[in-house]
Amino acid sequence: MTEIKFQRTGILFVVSAPSGAGKTTLCTALRQKPDFVYSVSCTTRRPRPGEIEGEDYYFLTHENFTEKMKANAFLEYAEVHGNFYGTLKKPVLTQLERGIDVLIDIDTRGAAAIRANQDHIIQDALADVFIMPPDLEELRRRLERRGTENAQELEIRLANAAGEMKCWRDYRYTIISGSMEENIEKFRAIMRAERYRSSRFFLEK
Amino acid sequence: MTEIKFQRTGILFVVSAPSGAGKTTLCTALRQKPDFVYSVSCTTRRPRPGEIEGEDYYFLTHENFTEKMKANAFLEYAEVHGNFYGTLKKPVLTQLERGIDVLIDIDTRGAAAIRANQDHIIQDALADVFIMPPDLEELRRRLERRGTENAQELEIRLANAAGEMKCWRDYRYTIISGSMEENIEKFRAIMRAERYRSSRFFLEK
Repeated sequence: MTEIKFQRTGILFVVSAPSGAGKTTLCTALRQKPDFVYSVSCTTRRPRPGEIEGEDYYFLTHENFTEKMKANAFLEYAEVHGNFYGTLKKPVLTQLERGIDVLIDIDTRGAAAIRANQDHIIQDALADVFIMPPDLEELRRRLERRGTENAQELEIRLANAAGEMKCWRDYRYTIISGSMEENIEKFRAIMRAERYRSSRFFLEK
Repeated sequence: MTEIKFQRTGILFVVSAPSGAGKTTLCTALRQKPDFVYSVSCTTRRPRPGEIEGEDYYFLTHENFTEKMKANAFLEYAEVHGNFYGTLKKPVLTQLERGIDVLIDIDTRGAAAIRANQDHIIQDALADVFIMPPDLEELRRRLERRGTENAQELEIRLANAAGEMKCWRDYRYTIISGSMEENIEKFRAIMRAERYRSSRFFLEK
């Protein structure tokens, strides 16, 4: 043994947060300089103006989605307000096996489904991160500033957030949301450190 | 619950490497801007010129060292060429309990002893990092450049290094040694990420 050639398996970065915690901003910023593949979800809901097929979502028909469900093609899926959302398993596994990291932006329920997945490739690859809003008052201010909900919707979002915030312990990492720059820097540190985990290395043959 | 106040426990960073891999340079650089307490070892060997009590080592008499051994005061200790070396347990535990991180620079045998420690505070706090020389040829060049060993000592060091290099899997992290700047940056990323581990947080009462 004179030379050591390491190779490594891909990492499955899963990021969740209550709405208003800064997750979308974080992921958008990370995707500007990607050293990972972003996992695009499938959905049966109609595209909103400006949404791009294959970048925001893969827009599937209900029939097509159901077929894939039956074929066990999803890593996780859920029905939300009558629409289905899901993450295809195959593209995720393919990247991980190639040693390419994957980033999945998903709600706490989806993250729990991924954690519960029995596939050892998924389990070994998983590094999940929860973005915690600093507190509910600040979250309220952020959502009010964003102004995308009416008063009633805002209360529902806040109630959901309070519930989701209890999930932080289930994640390997918790980032207390600060400025966008702070969140990016913290997330990048986690990404880097996860790449030095011995368990991800194997010796080249 | 309107406000979330997290506190966290201290992290026990343990760093090992074969000699010539760049560990001492790394630790010296990290100690320039410390956001941790560096664990100073005890030894029974005589101080070398320039070595400072309490900074390089705590220099103990053989009798004093043996008393502490009997009192189970060491987190780990070893005899090397007739001299004893050891890490006192109490100061490490005190810092960790205060939420202060501790850095221990120790050989692979010492790291193994710390890993084997049954104290749950130590186990929960532990984040161990192995610095892997790029390859044995490069390690030989580095040791030759350093010029602190004669030809025979150099061969012994290289043989030891080859053995130690097999330990990388036992560590949570492995850094393939590059330039000093790269090593510092990688180690700093690990330090940051470890501070976001959910398992280290607890809610303030």
